[in-house]
Amino acid sequence: MFKGKFITIEGSEGAGKSTNIGFIQDYLNQKNIPFILTREPGGTPVAEKIRDLLLDKANTSLCDDAELLLMFAARSQHLNELIIPALEAGKWVISDRFTDASYAYQGGGRGLSWQKIAQLEQWVQGNLRPDATILLDIPVDKGMERVRERGETDRFEQEQLSFFNRIREAYLKLAEENPERFHIVDTLPAIEKVHKQLERVMDHLSS
Amino acid sequence: MFKGKFITIEGSEGAGKSTNIGFIQDYLNQKNIPFILTREPGGTPVAEKIRDLLLDKANTSLCDDAELLLMFAARSQHLNELIIPALEAGKWVISDRFTDASYAYQGGGRGLSWQKIAQLEQWVQGNLRPDATILLDIPVDKGMERVRERGETDRFEQEQLSFFNRIREAYLKLAEENPERFHIVDTLPAIEKVHKQLERVMDHLSS
Repeated sequence: MFKGKFITIEGSEGAGKSTNIGFIQDYLNQKNIPFILTREPGGTPVAEKIRDLLLDKANTSLCDDAELLLMFAARSQHLNELIIPALEAGKWVISDRFTDASYAYQGGGRGLSWQKIAQLEQWVQGNLRPDATILLDIPVDKGMERVRERGETDRFEQEQLSFFNRIREAYLKLAEENPERFHIVDTLPAIEKVHKQLERVMDHLSS
Repeated sequence: MFKGKFITIEGSEGAGKSTNIGFIQDYLNQKNIPFILTREPGGTPVAEKIRDLLLDKANTSLCDDAELLLMFAARSQHLNELIIPALEAGKWVISDRFTDASYAYQGGGRGLSWQKIAQLEQWVQGNLRPDATILLDIPVDKGMERVRERGETDRFEQEQLSFFNRIREAYLKLAEENPERFHIVDTLPAIEKVHKQLERVMDHLSS
């Protein structure tokens, strides 16, 4: 086992990942916990190039299987080049999305079988799983309102409402199936209340 | 089963793939056999972008697992967007490299286990395999001479001699294990002799 903790942050569009990851950074800095902040797909130079392919709106012909394989190619690079070395060095790793996002987006959203995703998860990760996953949850219509206010959308954000409903359902199902690992934070209330919830989760993880 | 035949052309560096694929094209044109010529990694716009990532010498940090997953991501796109529709339309598909190259380069060359490659092969292809594979074979030192004469090298061609020895051995092992599918063509002799061998193979495949 590693000294550092591997925490992943998940949530559907508009759930407030950026704001709340900022809060988590401040929390870790205040506690003097050494950490790196990273994201998926991406996190290393090569994996960021794969991210560009995945998010590019020009790539409309990308098939579902290829999309999933690209996600796991980026993940493999991210794990080997950044996440595992950081954990081995005793740092915490905070990742904006990880494999649960593949289950939610490619499984729930695109309809790929969870078993097919589980095969790649095992292939790439062996037994490595996050120590904890914070699921930032918001009803889909409220989340989409926030995305629209932000302006420009990428290849995923252009999908239909039903796509995002399936994603949220998949996330909630993952949380139900992994109650020890998942911490659901409701991001609909005012920001101070959301941060109170997050603080309790972080207190628990760092205690 | 498809009406068209799926033929893959394999060989280590300098084995003369380009020249001999030209001969195969001429052969099929003369026989009025409808075909498409494609290549791996690549063959479709998205898969060609993945190819660029794989061959770019700047990506020295690319780990072996990620490289293999990128190969299969490109392959999945290639199959779904180009190869399968062409076969369904009754065309022959001639592909400059396919999955045997993953066994040879990532397995033989990089040392990834064949079992790990076989898992991805099954994940991406199901039961689809080439109808025939033409292995253009040349001793490694002779092949490298030809590559050097060509000038500019890519990320794969910069590897050491031992890397290419392992690739050739892997190809010959694949041929031994799949004697019905493989046709070995020795490309060391003068071009006319090589074409005679190729012609016999193509006569057999189109009879």
